[in-house]
Parts: sequence; structure tokens; C-alpha cells
Amino acid sequence: MERALIYIINGPNLNLVGQREPEVYGRQLLTTFIENLRQKADADIQLFQSNIEGELIDTLQEAGMKADAVILNAGGYTHSSVAIADAVAAIKIPVVEVHISNIFAREEERHVSLLSKYCTGMITGLGLDVYRLALDYLLQGRKRLA
Amino acid sequence: MERALIYIINGPNLNLVGQREPEVYGRQLLTTFIENLRQKADADIQLFQSNIEGELIDTLQEAGMKADAVILNAGGYTHSSVAIADAVAAIKIPVVEVHISNIFAREEERHVSLLSKYCTGMITGLGLDVYRLALDYLLQGRKRLA
Amino acid sequence: MERALIYIINGPNLNLVGQREPEVYGRQLLTTFIENLRQKADADIQLFQSNIEGELIDTLQEAGMKADAVILNAGGYTHSSVAIADAVAAIKIPVVEVHISNIFAREEERHVSLLSKYCTGMITGLGLDVYRLALDYLLQGRKRLA
Amino acid sequence: MERALIYIINGPNLNLVGQREPEVYGRQLLTTFIENLRQKADADIQLFQSNIEGELIDTLQEAGMKADAVILNAGGYTHSSVAIADAVAAIKIPVVEVHISNIFAREEERHVSLLSKYCTGMITGLGLDVYRLALDYLLQGRKRLA
Amino acid sequence: MERALIYIINGPNLNLVGQREPEVYGRQLLTTFIENLRQKADADIQLFQSNIEGELIDTLQEAGMKADAVILNAGGYTHSSVAIADAVAAIKIPVVEVHISNIFAREEERHVSLLSKYCTGMITGLGLDVYRLALDYLLQGRKRLA
Amino acid sequence: MERALIYIINGPNLNLVGQREPEVYGRQLLTTFIENLRQKADADIQLFQSNIEGELIDTLQEAGMKADAVILNAGGYTHSSVAIADAVAAIKIPVVEVHISNIFAREEERHVSLLSKYCTGMITGLGLDVYRLALDYLLQGRKRLA
Amino acid sequence: MERALIYIINGPNLNLVGQREPEVYGRQLLTTFIENLRQKADADIQLFQSNIEGELIDTLQEAGMKADAVILNAGGYTHSSVAIADAVAAIKIPVVEVHISNIFAREEERHVSLLSKYCTGMITGLGLDVYRLALDYLLQGRKRLA
Amino acid sequence: MERALIYIINGPNLNLVGQREPEVYGRQLLTTFIENLRQKADADIQLFQSNIEGELIDTLQEAGMKADAVILNAGGYTHSSVAIADAVAAIKIPVVEVHISNIFAREEERHVSLLSKYCTGMITGLGLDVYRLALDYLLQGRKRLA
Amino acid sequence: MERALIYIINGPNLNLVGQREPEVYGRQLLTTFIENLRQKADADIQLFQSNIEGELIDTLQEAGMKADAVILNAGGYTHSSVAIADAVAAIKIPVVEVHISNIFAREEERHVSLLSKYCTGMITGLGLDVYRLALDYLLQGRKRLA
Amino acid sequence: MERALIYIINGPNLNLVGQREPEVYGRQLLTTFIENLRQKADADIQLFQSNIEGELIDTLQEAGMKADAVILNAGGYTHSSVAIADAVAAIKIPVVEVHISNIFAREEERHVSLLSKYCTGMITGLGLDVYRLALDYLLQGRKRLA
Amino acid sequence: MERALIYIINGPNLNLVGQREPEVYGRQLLTTFIENLRQKADADIQLFQSNIEGELIDTLQEAGMKADAVILNAGGYTHSSVAIADAVAAIKIPVVEVHISNIFAREEERHVSLLSKYCTGMITGLGLDVYRLALDYLLQGRKRLA
Amino acid sequence: MERALIYIINGPNLNLVGQREPEVYGRQLLTTFIENLRQKADADIQLFQSNIEGELIDTLQEAGMKADAVILNAGGYTHSSVAIADAVAAIKIPVVEVHISNIFAREEERHVSLLSKYCTGMITGLGLDVYRLALDYLLQGRKRLA
Repeated sequence: MERALIYIINGPNLNLVGQREPEVYGRQLLTTFIENLRQKADADIQLFQSNIEGELIDTLQEAGMKADAVILNAGGYTHSSVAIADAVAAIKIPVVEVHISNIFAREEERHVSLLSKYCTGMITGLGLDVYRLALDYLLQGRKRLA
Repeated sequence: MERALIYIINGPNLNLVGQREPEVYGRQLLTTFIENLRQKADADIQLFQSNIEGELIDTLQEAGMKADAVILNAGGYTHSSVAIADAVAAIKIPVVEVHISNIFAREEERHVSLLSKYCTGMITGLGLDVYRLALDYLLQGRKRLA
Repeated sequence: MERALIYIINGPNLNLVGQREPEVYGRQLLTTFIENLRQKADADIQLFQSNIEGELIDTLQEAGMKADAVILNAGGYTHSSVAIADAVAAIKIPVVEVHISNIFAREEERHVSLLSKYCTGMITGLGLDVYRLALDYLLQGRKRLA
Repeated sequence: MERALIYIINGPNLNLVGQREPEVYGRQLLTTFIENLRQKADADIQLFQSNIEGELIDTLQEAGMKADAVILNAGGYTHSSVAIADAVAAIKIPVVEVHISNIFAREEERHVSLLSKYCTGMITGLGLDVYRLALDYLLQGRKRLA
Repeated sequence: MERALIYIINGPNLNLVGQREPEVYGRQLLTTFIENLRQKADADIQLFQSNIEGELIDTLQEAGMKADAVILNAGGYTHSSVAIADAVAAIKIPVVEVHISNIFAREEERHVSLLSKYCTGMITGLGLDVYRLALDYLLQGRKRLA
Repeated sequence: MERALIYIINGPNLNLVGQREPEVYGRQLLTTFIENLRQKADADIQLFQSNIEGELIDTLQEAGMKADAVILNAGGYTHSSVAIADAVAAIKIPVVEVHISNIFAREEERHVSLLSKYCTGMITGLGLDVYRLALDYLLQGRKRLA
Repeated sequence: MERALIYIINGPNLNLVGQREPEVYGRQLLTTFIENLRQKADADIQLFQSNIEGELIDTLQEAGMKADAVILNAGGYTHSSVAIADAVAAIKIPVVEVHISNIFAREEERHVSLLSKYCTGMITGLGLDVYRLALDYLLQGRKRLA
Repeated sequence: MERALIYIINGPNLNLVGQREPEVYGRQLLTTFIENLRQKADADIQLFQSNIEGELIDTLQEAGMKADAVILNAGGYTHSSVAIADAVAAIKIPVVEVHISNIFAREEERHVSLLSKYCTGMITGLGLDVYRLALDYLLQGRKRLA
Repeated sequence: MERALIYIINGPNLNLVGQREPEVYGRQLLTTFIENLRQKADADIQLFQSNIEGELIDTLQEAGMKADAVILNAGGYTHSSVAIADAVAAIKIPVVEVHISNIFAREEERHVSLLSKYCTGMITGLGLDVYRLALDYLLQGRKRLA
Repeated sequence: MERALIYIINGPNLNLVGQREPEVYGRQLLTTFIENLRQKADADIQLFQSNIEGELIDTLQEAGMKADAVILNAGGYTHSSVAIADAVAAIKIPVVEVHISNIFAREEERHVSLLSKYCTGMITGLGLDVYRLALDYLLQGRKRLA
Repeated sequence: MERALIYIINGPNLNLVGQREPEVYGRQLLTTFIENLRQKADADIQLFQSNIEGELIDTLQEAGMKADAVILNAGGYTHSSVAIADAVAAIKIPVVEVHISNIFAREEERHVSLLSKYCTGMITGLGLDVYRLALDYLLQGRKRLA
Repeated sequence: MERALIYIINGPNLNLVGQREPEVYGRQLLTTFIENLRQKADADIQLFQSNIEGELIDTLQEAGMKADAVILNAGGYTHSSVAIADAVAAIKIPVVEVHISNIFAREEERHVSLLSKYCTGMITGLGLDVYRLALDYLLQGRKRLA
């Protein structure tokens, strides 16, 4: 079995994680956390962050052509973007939706994700660990199938 | 009467038409289809596609200054973008809204278009022909007025 | 390939088009317009108008048994009639829904069509041309298949 | 650090997992899966299943007094039970909500969980692995704090 | 007290103010108006406009690191962007939301701002003066604290 | 001034008034009441009743061409018929909507009239007198203008 | 039969009728109109106007003790006042609700009257004549019973 | 006891049952089925079908004057017709509402029947047997009372 | 063909039928009625009643393993229990939903059944006869198939 | 007059009152409080608590047969249980609904009680005193009637 | 401990209690009832009634400055007045909301109180006793604290 | 140019600003603040406060006849009063709506202003400065026009 290629795609304001609003997102830099993850993981990890909705779509399409799976944290676009939902629907590889904070314990408008129904599943509220668990899930699945 | 200039503006994920989800969008490449249209049409056709909402707005504004009419398929932004709706409202040339699939036969959140009320009209669900029919309408109208 | 038979079925108040509310529907008589269409078309066109919901259903059922396709403008019944929707669903030939004015630029209660999801597609807001374009679509499709 | 005690609490119809509706829940017996988990886990695992809402509340209260954390799959009560939500709120240990299938890809009435806002987080749609990942999260957290 | 640095951030279609839809936005160029403001103001003013949602987020983040306050007119994104709202919430300097036209006297979908609750306050409907008043407020406040 | 021609158009089940449900509609035959009205009125009165929605539309259209005003009791179609509303909108003579019982004191689904906004006004709940008052209003108005 | 005593109770801003917004309410002074009515009527008419909700309630209670019937135009309180509705419910004499303009042809928030279900009936949209017709109804009814 | 007279009244598109959409309505002709029922039944059965709402009302009124009970399948009018509901309410004999398919397992707009509250009861989803069971219920009831 | 085994499962408060609220449920004891049914029926009937939601689920699961069909009256749980709905969905034998009173003629919150879409069909409002008719349907079906 | 028998029925999680969430429910044990009440009261008090919805229904039915009145705190079932509401409706003795905390000052989903309309009245938000006041009310009423 | 001063503030139409609608409010004069209460109470009681919303606010403000607690029955303003809610929120003494009839058993628009969340608690539906119980609660609380 | 006359009209509970709830409204007396404003302003300022809705309407009408502009803070009536909205609509001078706190950051029911659409604009959330900015706007406008 080839070494897997996993895209981690982060949406708007996730570049601030670890710098701002620690009461919501904690104090660890997201980039550092994922760097650690990358070093330990038995897979190639491609990290991408953008505040621009369309660039996230570009990257999802690219992942659909190159990667084995996606871990997607679409940030605030989660709740408004039919266009990102379309991109998830268009690609056939597994996409696991993650959120660092518990979106259901926050404001009403954050309770609905337009993406969820097109994703394989969702992990939310477990801090930065949501990335680690999503990765674990994706790699375990490959092993089982291998 | 001068030869007309028509912008065809396509939004997010429409670059995938013909490649993915053929059960929804068919198997013909959208670019090929429009290339054929261009060759037969008695008008200049400017084709633009972007996944980025703001670039669609940029192009709508540009069309408003240069073109005679617009054929607009805003994809997933159709259902969420007040900003694109504003751009349509701001330009004074005819804008015909098109959708390849029948948006009313799909999920609930695709049944409402924020753009429709600012457009001249809408053609939906007739496959790639929606572009051909919109073009026909726009050019016939010019002839009648000429 | 046999000459196609297309039913054009018009619902309530469409007998007044060209006589009343020209700011909404224009000044051309709908019957004159369709007469012109009929003369140029490479198909047999059967025109039917009624203000009675059930007679529209009768005619849709008849079309389902005799015709190749239907162009349907159900007028005000568009927004309230599950029964016409049932008739559209029951017949297997293509039905293209048309509206002369842009229903999405009018009052709230005209924004929802109960028929759309059972129709092949919809053309709205392009004046009487909606009939011409629907006919064009239906005949082109037949040619491609022939 | 003492060996952790984790309650896994399963609600109505989850005793059927692996026996019925394999297209939704898969073909592996949930009890077998958790037995495997138990053998490998560095923790004591207490498994409880009931179809009776009040017994789930009893067990949540008991866990609140004895255990270090809970993994809770409340099944159909997820969407209607303020009473189970109250029990989760009343106990102070971490509760991770899990669902085997992707509740957001199912019927409308399954999209809202009354429990989520009181839980630490949610893992949904990743098959039986949701139990494994929740357990992993809970035990990792303990290690970090230790 | 140092000279203040204020960002004025304008969203989609606001580059057209003074050119189009004068019945809604008046006939004065927004850039000219703000140039005048800049010359009279006892502060440095950084003007930014983009039609791209993510670039507005980028600039809000930049302002959060460099500036003393923001005057934000998010245009059509006001009503749909949880992501811009997140950016406002993430930065700790005062953000005053402005709208040239009275958003409450326009269409239903423009009555709700997703940003308002994270902003210090809102000034709406007073024409280009909304920028002048917001600036006045921000500079007076600094003086009082100085 | 010519003698006025007034159409009184009654919808479904109003042929039963005076025969059935006297607790809602009273015990006087509607036809008898209107016959009395006709004899005393200084106008020609044309009475029409049908249970068929489309025949009411036919008659409204006819009234629009021949009569000076309409008194319309659309019965149960009041609450569901966009098509009758269209017919009222299409004709330019005054249409006064009447209801024998107080529709606002009945079930929820009878509280909304789709016709009201296109009518001159409404008289409801005053028993058969609603016809007499509507007629009085229409004839007084003619006198004032004469 | 004694001469009837009828209260006409007018709510907020109805003192301006005839002075302001003639496109909505016409140009005739309401007081003059009612003065004329009083002189011709075979009844004593008590006219009361107040902008204060509670004074309208006081007067309704007073009417309930002294008068034979009420003609009530509660103006803007029509749409928000459960308290006036309670006062109407508490008194046992007939109350006819009137509105000069057609409330159903105005803004959404004016389409619902909280009073209607407790009133005998409603007359709306027929200009100042609504007072004349309501009075006619009330006096005719008395005659019939006498 | 006299032999009972039962009306079976079928609404729009029910003339197609057995011919079209067998996956919804089965393959047996409804007329054949009811013919069989008639031969075995200890009652006179009057069968009526129309696509026209008002003719169904006419027939319900007629049944109210002549028959002992009604079995009513109003088809698509079930969900929109206050007028048919009024006719059911106006007649005093028992009316049993039936639907061949399970309306609750179909689209949202078919889940609400405006007729149900005025009917004695409803039988839905049991195929053509719904007619047989309704008849059985009505005849058994008569026997018990006899 | 073996003798069929039918479970009749009754939910909360149905043990009171015949004792309380006779204006809603009649005066006959439900147990007596079903005892009579059992004696005449050409099938084995297993009657179960519980006020406890989870016990109804237990019994539905048991029926799914042992019985040929279920007649289910879930009482008040009909309107709130996704968990019972899940149990119905999980078992593959026919389940006919019954209600003694006409749930559509009662309060708003009783108009929606969460179970209906998973059941074969529903019989409601025909008194205790709903059990008899459901049984008849189930046994007739078996005969036809035999 | 006989000594009254009053049932106090407490629902899910109320066994924890005094032990957990003192900021919501205070620090006094509910059982101790009611023991004190019992000793002072001029009545027999039967205290029952269960987390199981159906056991609460069982006990309400039992109270309906044996007791003079009920004080009911249904906890989280208050907001979801039509079945408990049915039980309250079925018994004819007075039932006073109580809540320790002010349910209207808590989350949205706790603002609606399905039980209230069937209860005599409600006392909420006054701490454990709600039991004392309810008891006082019930016993005073008996005295007045005696 | 000083003798307490309690304001009882009654809103619109409560001056009619005992005179009108005895089926809702009983036959005892509210003023007589409170006079009795005053004579027995170990506190000074200030009774105020007005139909005018603003006078209730004036009195709430006055109570906030002079009294120890308030018993508030805002009548019909309960359901519409954000302004009274503001006054309750602004004063810091306990306010107990009372209603004589069970507001939850009445019309839909009476089920929501805008005041409740700012009040200490609510007592509803227990007749005039609601005043006695509220007073008891307020005085007991003072004793416990003393 | 004459010296302008500006009415500042404050609604319910605004007499308490500076005395109560300083966390919402600050600690400065509103009357003192406006007194300062008056001394510096190049205009005559008429200050009016009342808790009575109708007195605010009286004063708005008076301002409409005497003043050049109004600054209106309708407090809690902002969210419920169609009657004040009518008064604003009836007068033709500019009305600027102000709120001291950010109404969009408070409870849901404070997010909607019924007045906004009739006002020139709104300033909210900037503390007492909202009065100063509104005044500045009104006087600047007059200068520009002069």
C-alpha cells in the first residue's frame, strides 16, 4: 500500500488559532500542532489555510484529484457556503469535517453546517485533537482495507 | 447595429462540469459546449469562471461597463450571496440567470435564488442548452430593437 | 422521425395576456404570438387555455397519452395546486414550465412553484419568448436523439 | 495515575447494531466491537445499553458518581430528551457524544441533538470507530494532565 | 498620545458608490469623500476596498495587529458572512459598523446583520456622513481616555 | 348617470347558506336576501354562484368587461386561490370582498385572504348585511362622483 | 325603543386624518366627517380619540357600561395590543372594528389584528365610509330587534 | 333497516390508478376494484371521479342530501382545498377520508390534510384496501345502530 | 399457511380506555374489545400495553423477531418518539399505526406522527374499530399472498 | 372532612436536588424539605420520584384513583412529553405544576411546557417553596369547600 | 426587622375582576380580596391599578425606590411590553409575576410572557389565591433572612 | 438661516440612565449629558421623556408641527409599537433613531425595530455619544443645505 496523502484544509480565521480568543480555541498554535502530527503520522500531510472561500474550493478540487482524503475545517464558511458544500459533494474521496470548539455550544447560527451531509462524518469540540482523531480514522480505514 | 458582446460568467465548481457528477450535470465539457456556441453565435462571447465570489463580482462590474448582456450561472453562490445580487442590481444591462440542473428538484436550500429578482429572467434544468437559449433570447431581443 | 406534437397548456387569466396589465405581461396577444410560433415551427402545436384547474389536469392527462411534450404555464395554480403537480408527475413526456413575467421579482407567494420539481425545467421572466425558447429546446432535443 | 473508568452508555435500538439495517449501521456486532476495544484499552470500560430513557438517566447519574468519563450514544432520544440533557448537565465528568451513522445526512428530525451543548464534543458518522476515537480522546487527555 | 491609525474597510460593490444607483447611495464618489475626511482628520486613515470576502478578513486581521480602530462597511457580506463576523470577534480594537443607506428600509434579507453583535455599534442610513460620524466617535473616545 | 351594474359573485358552498350550519351562517336563504336587495337597490344586480374556481374567474373576467363593480365572496377559495387573486388584480373596477361570518374568529387557516390586497376593501362578520353594506358603499361612491 | 348611544373610539394618530398622508387616509378631516354623520344619524354619538392605549381601554370599559355599541378604530394598537383585545372581550355590547385604509394592502405587520376575533366584524379599506357603514349596521340591527 | 347508499368520491388523477405510477399506486384498476367491492357489498355504491375541485364539492353536497355516508379520496386537493373541507363540514353524514399510498411517507407538502379534522377518520397507505376497510367500517356501524 | 401471530402494542394511558374521557375514547374497555377480536380472529394475537417508552421498543424488537405483523397505537409517544420510530424502521414486518380518536381533529401537537413514515399505513378516528380493520387488512394480505 | 391525600410526583434528575448544580437548584435536599413539609402539613403526603417517564404516568394514574390532588414537577419531561400530558388530562383531580428554578429564565427549549394547559396552574422559580405554596393552595381550597 | 412594604401592581382590565367574565376570573372583587389580604398580612401593602402601560412603569420605578418587593399582574401587557420588562429588569427588588387564570390554557398569544425572565418567579392559574401565595412567599423569605 | 429647533424624545425607563444598570447604560446621567450638549449646540434643544407610549406619540406629532428634526430613543417601545412607527411616518421632518446600548448584542426580541424603516437612519451602541452624533448629523445637513 502506498503512503497516503491527506489534505488538511483550514478556512477563515483559523490562522489565528493559538494567538487569539484562547478561551474558545486554546493557546497552542495550530501550525505547530499539525507540524507535530505530520512528523508522527504514517502519511504525507498537505496543510492549506485561506480566508478566501473560493481558494478553499480550488484546494478541495485539487485534493479531489491528488489526495486520498481531506480533513476540512471550513470555519465560518461552514454555516453559509453552499459552494464549498458543492465542492465536497463533487469529489469522491472521504472528507472528515472538524471543528476545534463545540459548535453546538455556541451561538444559534453556528449550529447548522451546510457541509455535514456531504462529509463522511464530523468531529467537533475536542480541541486540536479533532485533527489527530480524524487523521487516525482515515489511516486506520486504509489499513483495514489494505 | 454593432456586434453584441455577451459575458458568460460561471461560478464555483462549474469548471468541473463534464468531469464529475455526470448524473447531475451530464458528460459534456462546459468549455467545449460554449466554444461551439461561440463559433456559431452572431456575437462576441467572453467566458469567465471563478470559484471566488469577489472575482465574480469584479467581472459583473466589468461587464456592466463593457458588455451588452450577461449570462450568469453563479453556482452555489446563487443561494447565499447578497453581494453578487448587489452587483447584478448595480449594472443596468440584461442579466439572464441559468442553471444546468433543475434547482427546484434538488435539496431545499437550492430552491431559493437571491439573484433572481434582480435578473431579467431564469432558465433552469434544461442541461447545457440553458446557455444556448439564454444567448438566443438576448440576441433576438437586440434584433427586434434594432 | 415523425413530426412532433407539442401541447401548450395555459392556465387561469392567461387569456387576458395582451389585453390587461401590459406593465406585467406586455401588449402582444398571447394567441397571436403562438399562432406565429405555430406557423414557423417544425411541429404540430395544440394550444389549450382554461381557467379551471381540473380541465388543465384533464388536458395534461390527454397530452400524456397523445403528445411528445408539453409547455405548461399554469398561471396562479402554479403556487397552490398539488393536483396539477400530480398530473405532471403521472405523465412521462417532458414538461417545460414557463412564466411570462419573472415570478421571483413579484410577491412572496409567487416565488414557490409546486410544479417545478416534476418538470424538466423552467423558463421565466423573458416575456412571450419563454414559449419560443421552450419549443426550441424540445425540438432540438428530439433532433439530437433522432 | 489510577486506571481510568469509562462508561459507554448506549440508548434505544443500539442492541440491534450489526443485526439489522446494515446499510445504516454496518454488519459488525456493537458488543463484539466494544469487547475488542475493552481488551486493548488501558482503562476499565463499563458497557450499558437500555431502551428505557429513565434507565439511561439512572446510569448517567451513577457514572457521574463513579466514573472518569462517559461515551454516550443516546440513539433516538438524542433528538427529543431534555431529561437526558439535564442528566449530562448535572454530572461534571467529560461526556463525549457519539453516533455511528452521520446524523446530518439522515432525516431532518435527526439533525438536532438536544445533548450536544452539554457534552464536551461530538463524533458522528465514522461507523463503530466513533467509540474508539472517543475513548482515545478521553485517555489521551488524562495522560496529558497526569 | 500618539496619532491614531484608523482602518476604513469597504466591502463588495462599494467601489461603485457615486457612480451607480444614485437613488440609493447618492452621487458623491466614496473615495473623494474619504479623501476629504482624511485631510481634516487628526488621525492616519488607511482605506481598503475589496469585493473578495477573504481579503476583507485578511485586512481585518491586519488592522487587529496594527490599527487603533476600524470603520467597517461590509456591504452585501453583512448579511451572510459568519466568517467576517468571526474576524471582528477575534480582534480586540473597536469596530464601528456603517451603512450608507438605511438597511432597515430595504429588502427583508438586508435587515439582519451578522456582524452587529460583535461590533461596538452601528451607524446606518445617514449617507456618506456615516463614515464621518464613526470617525468622530472613535477619535473623541481616544481623547476622553487620553 | 347610467344605472349601475353590480355583480355579486359567490363561491363554493355559499349555495347552502340558510340551509346548513345556521350557527355559522344564519337561517335566511342567501338568494332570498339578495332578491330583496335587488328589488330595493337603485342598480342592476347580477348574481352568480359556483363551486368551481375557474368559473368564478370566468365571471370575474366577464364582470371586468361589463360591470361597474363586484361584490365577491370567494368562500373557501379566499384562502388558497392565487388564480382568483390574479383575476381580481386584472380587472380595473372596484371589488369589495365580503364574508358572512367573522373569518378572524374561525380556524387559523381562514385568517389569511389571498384576495384582500387586490380588493378595494373587506367587510366581514356582519351576517348577510355584508352584501347590503358593500352595495351601499359602491352606489354611494358613484353618486359622489356623479 | 330608546335612542341608541354609540361610541366611536379612535386610536393613535387618527387625529391627523385629513391633515397628513392624504395618499393613505384622504383629505377630509375625520372630525368633520363624523360631525356630519352625527347630525344625520338617528342615534347619539360619542366621539373619543386618544394616542394613549390605556385611555382607549378606559373608554372601552366606560362604553361597556353606558353605550349600546362601539365603533373601534384602534390604529397602530390594532396589531400589538392584547390589552385592548381584553377590553373588547370584557364588554358585552357589539364592537365593530374599522380601518380607513386597506390594512391587507399595507405592510406585513399590519395584516394581523389582535382585536378581530373579539369583535362582531370588521370593515376595512373603504375610506371614511367605514364609519358610516358600521353605524348603519348597528342601527339596522337594533331596528330589526325592536 | 334500509339498504345503505354510500358515495365513493375520487379526486384528481385517481382515474389513472392502475395505469400509471404503479410503484406508488399499484397495478390494479381502481374502477375494477370498486366494481368487485360493489358486487359483494350489502349496500348501494355510487362511484364518482372528477379532476375538477368544484365538481367534487357539488357531489359532496349531493351526497349530503341523498346518501348515508361518503368515502372520500380527494387526491391532490386534500392538501390545498379549504373549499372541499367546507363541503365536508357542511354535510352531516359520516365521511371517511382514504388515501391509497401512505401520504406521510411522501413529500412534505402531502403530510397535511385540510380535510381530516372534518372527517370521521382516515385510512391511509394500505393500497386499494382502504376503500374496502372504509366501507366495512361504515356498514358495521349501521348494523350496530340498527 | 401457518396461523399468523399478530402483536397489538398499546402505549401510554391506553390502559384507561373505557374508564376515562369517554367523550374522546368511548365507554368500551379496550381489553374486552380486543378479547372479542381475539376469539373471532383466525390468528394468534399477543396484546401488550405499557406506559414506558422503552418497553414498547423492547416489545417492537421482540415482535420483529417472532411475529408476522404489528398493530401499534403508541399513544402520546406517537408525537415525540424518534426512538420508537427507529424501532419500527428496524423491524421488517408490516406495522399498521392506529389511533382511536381522530388525531387531526385534536390539538395541534397531535397532528404530527413521527412513526407514520416508517409504518405501512395508518387508521385513525374510527373508534375501537381501528384495531379490527387493521387486523382484517393484515390477515387479508396474508391470504392473498398464500 | 377527611384528611386529604396529596401526591408529590417528581421527575428525572430531581433526586439530585441539593447535591448538584446548587446555583440552579440550591443546596437543600429536596427529600429533607418535603419531609419537613409532611410533618407540618394537615394532610397525608405521598412522595414519588422516578427518572422513567412511564413510571411517572403509572403514578399519575394511581393518584387519579386514590388521591385528592397532585403536585407535579416533571423535570425535563415537562417540555417533551405528550404522554404525561395525556395522563394529567385523564385524571380529574387538581394537578399543580411546579418548577424549582424559573424555567422562563433558562434556555429556549425550557420555556414551553406541554403539561400546563391540562394543569390547574403553575408555580415556578420560587425555589423549594414552590412545593409549600402548591400544598397550601390545595389545602386552602379544600377548607373553603368544606 | 422593619415591617415590609409590598407593592401590588395590576395592569389593564384588572379593575373589572369580579364584575365581568366570571367564567375566567371568578366572581370576587379583586379589591375586596386584597383588602382582606392587607388586614391579615404582617406587611404594608400598596395597591395600584392602571390601564396605562406607562403608569405601570412609573409605579414599578417608584416601587424600586421605596418598596421591598412587588407582586405584578401586568394583564394584557404581559405579552407585548418590552418596556415593562425593562422596568422590571431595572429595579433590584424581587418581583413575582402573577396571573389569575391559567394563561397556558388560553389562546396562543397569551402563552408567552415577556416579563417572566426578569421576574423571580411566576404563579398562574390558581385564582385570586395567586396574590396570597406570592405575598406569603415574599414574607417568608424575609423571615428566613432576618 | 434660522436657529434650528431639535426635539430629543426619550421613551420608557430612560429617566433611569446613569442611576441603574450602569453595566448596560453607563454611569452618566442622561439629563446632564444632554444639558452639556444643549449648551454647546448651535440649535435650540427641546428634551422630553415619558414612560407613556401615547405621550411620545403626542410629542412626535407636536415636533412634526414645530421642530426641524427629532432624535428619538423609544426604549422598549422600539420593538413593539406600530403606533409610534405611524407617528414617525406621519411627520415629514428627519427623525434619527438612537440607542445607547448595542441592541443587536442584547436579547433576540431587541434586534428588531419597528421604527427603523420610517426613520432617516439609526445610531446604536456608542453610549451617550449617539445623541451627540445624531445632533451633529442633523445640524451639518442644515448647513450644507443653507
